[in-house]
Amino acid sequence: MSPVRAGAPTEAALSDEAWLSAMLDAEVALACAQARIGMIAWTSADAIAAVAGSWRCDLVSLACRARDAANPVVAFVQELTREVAARYPDAADDVHRGSTSQDILDTATMLLAAHAVDLILEDLDRVCDALARLAERHRDTPMAARTLTQHAVPTTFGLKAAGWLHAIGEASVRLRRVRGELPAQLGGAAGTLASYHEYAVLRGVVAQDGGSPALELVSVFAEELGLAEPVLPWHTARAPIAALGAELSMLTGALGKFGTDMLNLARTEVAEATEPTAEGRGSSSAMPQKHNPVLATLLLSAALQLPAHASVLMHCMLAEDERPAGAWHAEWQPLREALRIAGGAAHTAAELAEGLAAQPGAMARNMELTEGQIVAERLAVHLTDALGKAGAKQYLGRIATSSTATGMPFNRAVRTDPGILEHLSPRKIEEILNPADYRGAAGELVDRALREHRLRSHSGTGVLAAHDAGDIEQPDTGKGHFDA
Amino acid sequence: MSPVRAGAPTEAALSDEAWLSAMLDAEVALACAQARIGMIAWTSADAIAAVAGSWRCDLVSLACRARDAANPVVAFVQELTREVAARYPDAADDVHRGSTSQDILDTATMLLAAHAVDLILEDLDRVCDALARLAERHRDTPMAARTLTQHAVPTTFGLKAAGWLHAIGEASVRLRRVRGELPAQLGGAAGTLASYHEYAVLRGVVAQDGGSPALELVSVFAEELGLAEPVLPWHTARAPIAALGAELSMLTGALGKFGTDMLNLARTEVAEATEPTAEGRGSSSAMPQKHNPVLATLLLSAALQLPAHASVLMHCMLAEDERPAGAWHAEWQPLREALRIAGGAAHTAAELAEGLAAQPGAMARNMELTEGQIVAERLAVHLTDALGKAGAKQYLGRIATSSTATGMPFNRAVRTDPGILEHLSPRKIEEILNPADYRGAAGELVDRALREHRLRSHSGTGVLAAHDAGDIEQPDTGKGHFDA
Amino acid sequence: MSPVRAGAPTEAALSDEAWLSAMLDAEVALACAQARIGMIAWTSADAIAAVAGSWRCDLVSLACRARDAANPVVAFVQELTREVAARYPDAADDVHRGSTSQDILDTATMLLAAHAVDLILEDLDRVCDALARLAERHRDTPMAARTLTQHAVPTTFGLKAAGWLHAIGEASVRLRRVRGELPAQLGGAAGTLASYHEYAVLRGVVAQDGGSPALELVSVFAEELGLAEPVLPWHTARAPIAALGAELSMLTGALGKFGTDMLNLARTEVAEATEPTAEGRGSSSAMPQKHNPVLATLLLSAALQLPAHASVLMHCMLAEDERPAGAWHAEWQPLREALRIAGGAAHTAAELAEGLAAQPGAMARNMELTEGQIVAERLAVHLTDALGKAGAKQYLGRIATSSTATGMPFNRAVRTDPGILEHLSPRKIEEILNPADYRGAAGELVDRALREHRLRSHSGTGVLAAHDAGDIEQPDTGKGHFDA
Amino acid sequence: MSPVRAGAPTEAALSDEAWLSAMLDAEVALACAQARIGMIAWTSADAIAAVAGSWRCDLVSLACRARDAANPVVAFVQELTREVAARYPDAADDVHRGSTSQDILDTATMLLAAHAVDLILEDLDRVCDALARLAERHRDTPMAARTLTQHAVPTTFGLKAAGWLHAIGEASVRLRRVRGELPAQLGGAAGTLASYHEYAVLRGVVAQDGGSPALELVSVFAEELGLAEPVLPWHTARAPIAALGAELSMLTGALGKFGTDMLNLARTEVAEATEPTAEGRGSSSAMPQKHNPVLATLLLSAALQLPAHASVLMHCMLAEDERPAGAWHAEWQPLREALRIAGGAAHTAAELAEGLAAQPGAMARNMELTEGQIVAERLAVHLTDALGKAGAKQYLGRIATSSTATGMPFNRAVRTDPGILEHLSPRKIEEILNPADYRGAAGELVDRALREHRLRSHSGTGVLAAHDAGDIEQPDTGKGHFDA
Repeated sequence: MSPVRAGAPTEAALSDEAWLSAMLDAEVALACAQARIGMIAWTSADAIAAVAGSWRCDLVSLACRARDAANPVVAFVQELTREVAARYPDAADDVHRGSTSQDILDTATMLLAAHAVDLILEDLDRVCDALARLAERHRDTPMAARTLTQHAVPTTFGLKAAGWLHAIGEASVRLRRVRGELPAQLGGAAGTLASYHEYAVLRGVVAQDGGSPALELVSVFAEELGLAEPVLPWHTARAPIAALGAELSMLTGALGKFGTDMLNLARTEVAEATEPTAEGRGSSSAMPQKHNPVLATLLLSAALQLPAHASVLMHCMLAEDERPAGAWHAEWQPLREALRIAGGAAHTAAELAEGLAAQPGAMARNMELTEGQIVAERLAVHLTDALGKAGAKQYLGRIATSSTATGMPFNRAVRTDPGILEHLSPRKIEEILNPADYRGAAGELVDRALREHRLRSHSGTGVLAAHDAGDIEQPDTGKGHFDA
Repeated sequence: MSPVRAGAPTEAALSDEAWLSAMLDAEVALACAQARIGMIAWTSADAIAAVAGSWRCDLVSLACRARDAANPVVAFVQELTREVAARYPDAADDVHRGSTSQDILDTATMLLAAHAVDLILEDLDRVCDALARLAERHRDTPMAARTLTQHAVPTTFGLKAAGWLHAIGEASVRLRRVRGELPAQLGGAAGTLASYHEYAVLRGVVAQDGGSPALELVSVFAEELGLAEPVLPWHTARAPIAALGAELSMLTGALGKFGTDMLNLARTEVAEATEPTAEGRGSSSAMPQKHNPVLATLLLSAALQLPAHASVLMHCMLAEDERPAGAWHAEWQPLREALRIAGGAAHTAAELAEGLAAQPGAMARNMELTEGQIVAERLAVHLTDALGKAGAKQYLGRIATSSTATGMPFNRAVRTDPGILEHLSPRKIEEILNPADYRGAAGELVDRALREHRLRSHSGTGVLAAHDAGDIEQPDTGKGHFDA
Repeated sequence: MSPVRAGAPTEAALSDEAWLSAMLDAEVALACAQARIGMIAWTSADAIAAVAGSWRCDLVSLACRARDAANPVVAFVQELTREVAARYPDAADDVHRGSTSQDILDTATMLLAAHAVDLILEDLDRVCDALARLAERHRDTPMAARTLTQHAVPTTFGLKAAGWLHAIGEASVRLRRVRGELPAQLGGAAGTLASYHEYAVLRGVVAQDGGSPALELVSVFAEELGLAEPVLPWHTARAPIAALGAELSMLTGALGKFGTDMLNLARTEVAEATEPTAEGRGSSSAMPQKHNPVLATLLLSAALQLPAHASVLMHCMLAEDERPAGAWHAEWQPLREALRIAGGAAHTAAELAEGLAAQPGAMARNMELTEGQIVAERLAVHLTDALGKAGAKQYLGRIATSSTATGMPFNRAVRTDPGILEHLSPRKIEEILNPADYRGAAGELVDRALREHRLRSHSGTGVLAAHDAGDIEQPDTGKGHFDA
Repeated sequence: MSPVRAGAPTEAALSDEAWLSAMLDAEVALACAQARIGMIAWTSADAIAAVAGSWRCDLVSLACRARDAANPVVAFVQELTREVAARYPDAADDVHRGSTSQDILDTATMLLAAHAVDLILEDLDRVCDALARLAERHRDTPMAARTLTQHAVPTTFGLKAAGWLHAIGEASVRLRRVRGELPAQLGGAAGTLASYHEYAVLRGVVAQDGGSPALELVSVFAEELGLAEPVLPWHTARAPIAALGAELSMLTGALGKFGTDMLNLARTEVAEATEPTAEGRGSSSAMPQKHNPVLATLLLSAALQLPAHASVLMHCMLAEDERPAGAWHAEWQPLREALRIAGGAAHTAAELAEGLAAQPGAMARNMELTEGQIVAERLAVHLTDALGKAGAKQYLGRIATSSTATGMPFNRAVRTDPGILEHLSPRKIEEILNPADYRGAAGELVDRALREHRLRSHSGTGVLAAHDAGDIEQPDTGKGHFDA
């Protein structure tokens, strides 16, 4: 029931099986970390890892038993302990030692989120590369810019693609940042690390710095998993979850903007861009002629859902006491769904961007639709000295209105209008009326977005200032370098 | 990952298999309706029904092919047609005749929603019956009312239970209403019924009223399915979906209020109500002594999620043109998830309400905690004639403050305060200080809610006016019957 | 900063002054109700009414003092009492007697909501009347139906207008229903009515039915205000607020669908409908030629905001204990803003609907854009007997694809295709290719919507079944009336 | 109607007047930037600045005229131009030269947002300083940790305060980051900078690098305003707005967590922390004894509203074409309201944190409520070697259950249980039963949070890794430093 997700790499990465596997990874990492600091024997850690590597449990039964504790970890730990006890009796007491449900589930969630985000970032790289190629190829392809649905002035398809590129690239930078901050969770029953501490002390573990060995356990545990080490346990400080939700929503927002634009460009009357075709793609169950823009449709359907998931995760920051009754439990589905949908959207966008075909011919034809009104602003600029700014705008507004009323094309009216001919030569008028010539800094803006994209690709990580994007190829020459 | 849903009857009713089955039901009903009005032969309709009854298709492959059309119906119809063609070649052309994806998917969705809501309403009946028993049993059990977290004045546990009963009963009435309005969908490619009309006319079907036979097809189709007949096709008029989402959210709101109250009553320091116990229920993976209020926790987790799903469905009312690119596709998951979570919440609430144990002893003890401050308002009432309303409130406020400061119990201070003894006899003071005696109209309010519940149970449907609930057992005696 | 609201009648009705005035109305109604049942003297009630009628207080100071109690009522009652004391000393103790902040603020909110909804319903009547006129006038005006942004099959502008009419009419029926259910609030400090009860008993008020006089106070209070009488106090049972929020959101959803469609119709390339023009309307600060569809823009901006407000109100149903710390306080702004924006949207929609100009010429031109592909479905219907359903669809799909590739118009290809001419006569082909002729039941669907509108206008209230709308002019003739 | 906002410094900073003033600042900066690069004369820029400095316009009339263009800028520019024309006729044509509504309104919004965020950050510094003092003072004050509402194990009030500190500090770091990225907006009618470019070229402005002088205009404009320079115009790339909304929501989430905890600690039965008192603060309109936790209530009311505003802003990323019809217009109110509420919440939190009084006596008393069950986990740790992990948990679970059933205190049962005495000496048992002694690493976690706070205060900006916070006072000694 969610075509945007179907077939995306994130689907498998977020399956029920993947969740179970991540919980096992968390238990194994905990055991290894405890072995590393001397809390348990390495034989136990090895035994737990061995069982985890081969164990399959009944997910449906686990889900139903999850009701009893309001989370799946209690039953999961019982089953895992039983399995370890059956194969390595001495290790059973070292399963989940000193731990609590939330340590395992939060950590497993972070592992899955990290993996899913990595997959998403790969697809976003494909999206950005493809959009960069489009922006480059169509750097100077003129088309009508539309504001409030109406032809406004000319722009280029390259700038449009550069806009998508910049927004999606920026979203991927933000997502990469939040991914790098995903923390391991370790706090024990109430975030004091008391049970870990107590077990460690009981086993004679002593931290060199004289502090609690439990703090070192947190550090080693995070290292085992490749997750960030938290300053404090975050059982009720849910910023990592809420921030991830927010970034995923902003990502589908950027991808949805791309989709929305594509839908408008694909309208029968506009027809300025088409989706990649494939056997059976875009067909209807009723109409023979249909090639629906289904990829863009899926992008939009994703973008319509994510803000709601993000808002639930933000609400769940109201996690009372040391561990909340409900606010934690309400996070799981929205976060999972947000990752899945965003994953599907990134994958869909890659396919769309790589196969998108711009139609310069249609763009040129559409730009003629208003018979010159699309450069009315430019005419006004050139008449400002003569008629004043407001005067020029009014004068041209009257011509536009009367041209709509009489059917006389605007450009013909302009060419023959004595009030205009008084100030502009026929040759100048022709020049001005050429829409392909009124593109402002569009080309250079495309270049900036492409430079930013290249920098981002090379650095692999960084957020770039406008300055960097603007100036990578030449030094900033500072103020005062204009000749008026 | 969603314990609130696990094990509820709505889970099976909303599975992928159930969705497929409902799409088959829609196709069969369409064929039967077409046979009834003479558009196709009954042999075709019977053949389609026969295949639908035994056919199993590969859901995963269907889901992946759904990407191509942005919905699963196109591939589903291809598969179904192939199957019918294999077994009843003559009937194959009558599969999905004149139809469109959205007719089938929307109708299937309404069938599933209707079934799921019926299951939810059954659980809500259990909830209400159990709450009615609690309200009746504890009609006069006094306890502290809490406002802004502080003891305010006394109330009764019966009134608390009556409040839950009223809110949940009202939500079930609203939900029942929206369920009765769930419409079948039939509009053809763009809501004009043109293809149905054309096929019917081609087959010589004539409506007696001289109108389009397609309109009669809609009526017969809805009747076949037990769904409401729509005034117009609603491909882009999504109120039925949005209204259902809103009611589900309001239901989990009412259930969540019950859960929230239970969580507060279950706090270690309060301990005025306990959840039903069961083997393993409420246990922790770390702490031996724990019996967590897990059912209430699940109720709250549901209530935190539904408003977001409802808001997506409201957003999707912005369905452009004759069928939207994205807004329709974004509805499926939120609606399904809303039904699932609400179903889980109703089921959980039934278990909670039926096993909830009130603790009158703890209620009585807690009511003494403020040593009489809980009836300060009542004292103020009795001192108003002597000290003025503001004066009485200030006077008692000062005693309360000084009692907090000095440790002298408020009730002892009141008993010995000359300013009070001047106006109230010691005996009167004792009477006033008895919190169990300051319950206002609590008992009668409980009676109203119980009467309303009984009426609702008997009528099966109706929304009741306050008037009905207030007066079912005695006639309204009108105005002017007070003796001051 | 909210142009959609500016200038709408609801703005004044929801101002800070209006809020103050409604709080005064609530206090006056409380005093009158208490006088009616004998709790206070009529002289007091009259005095309070007199002061309320002429009193002006400092709203800014009130707002700042609202912080101290987390609500404005405490300071408001102090000021009002001071004013009454100054002019009618004997009445001062009867101000707000037995009452609590939430009784007054909730009741005031319901008064304002009722008034605002009445204003909205008036504007909706204008919208519906105007849309009914459009639907009637353009009952048979053909245009392209668009699905997933692509031309699908023909429809009529009348059906489009009828769709808006039906959706907005239905939303207004729902809103009217929820308006009639808006309840007065009276519960005392914690919903037991204890203080009202105690004062009444102290004054010797006896209810004829032997019950608590406080219950009669609730009834009389609601009657004074023209609000519904609640079964129970609803301090923490917030369905009335959440339901109102949901209906307002569904209303702006229906209006936003109208706006969204208008935006698509107004696109430069489409140009099938234009907004009413007015001096300065739709102008740009930059471009002389611009006439932006600003009214539709405002409708959409409203629809994008309301679901969020509705979701907050749904969340606030989680109102713990007898009065919540936060959930109540979070309702005020979203509800007010929802009423304001919905009010602005209704007012804007009236202006848009009344001045909307359809452009049948453009509709006809656009319908030719696909050179006949828009009736490909109809051709398939007529070829089904010869080629099979799937065969016909494939055959025409191939023609469509090759016509796109070669530039040969689809209709010309069809006219000369031997495979088609084998089964359909040239004359039949011409008939089928006329898009204006493939409107299915569009005309009759328009009639249904118009009948429903007339019934709704006459009844003033009722929700109508499809049955009523379909059959108002002729009796339902039952089953079996078809001749195949 | 929004007490959380009333009186906060952000109220004035976000008033209608402030908005007007920011629009003037944007126009002045544009004129100055144009003068700097030679597009207009400095006399014009000076004239515009002079008029802006003294001009007052009618805000209500402006709001009403905003309906005509769906934004307030068109009318605003007309008024401003008229005013400049009246005083400096030659400068009138240089007002808003080449500009578009969205350039001005977006830039003004960023200016206001930057100012409001600065005010919020100041209040957050107060919050963090106060919480740091609390955490330090109560580093070792033991109290019961509560999970799923039940006493779990001991914690310290210091760790609780440190948790608030860390979460709010982190939110302030994130907010500071997004504030630094708030960009100026300059794009012209459709984001190509064409009109600015054209005017500049017409005036003979040449950029030294041979590129478009319009790009330099953007850079100089941003510098004039102290805003970030955007890579591209962001008329339809709304990440800056959505990110700001997300951070504000995450901030109120962190503040709301603080408020929620305070509400639980303030419950009559718990009474472990009290709000700062002030004359009239927390009073009720009905009950003399009430001191409601109103500041925490306001914090919660803020946190319940922000996620919805953030979700609207995320939705508005779906801004179609070169400038959207509706999605832009829907941003204004939610962003303004989000800034206002967050501003009020930060201000409220400062007052709360600075005056919060912890009650160690009540904490100690409450910790005794379960008569030792709060250290059941610790007992289990010490019995694990003897009874196995599961065995120890079960054994103690049985004692806990029977102690609840029989009324025999858990700690007494433990002291006399032969099964326990077999493994632990009476002296060891007493040690274990002392809850104040089972605090794990709580103290060191407090120290980490305090170090992080100090680093944050000193650096003024940076996000800190756990590593920094953990190790600021001593070097990281690497692996292998444990003696088991």
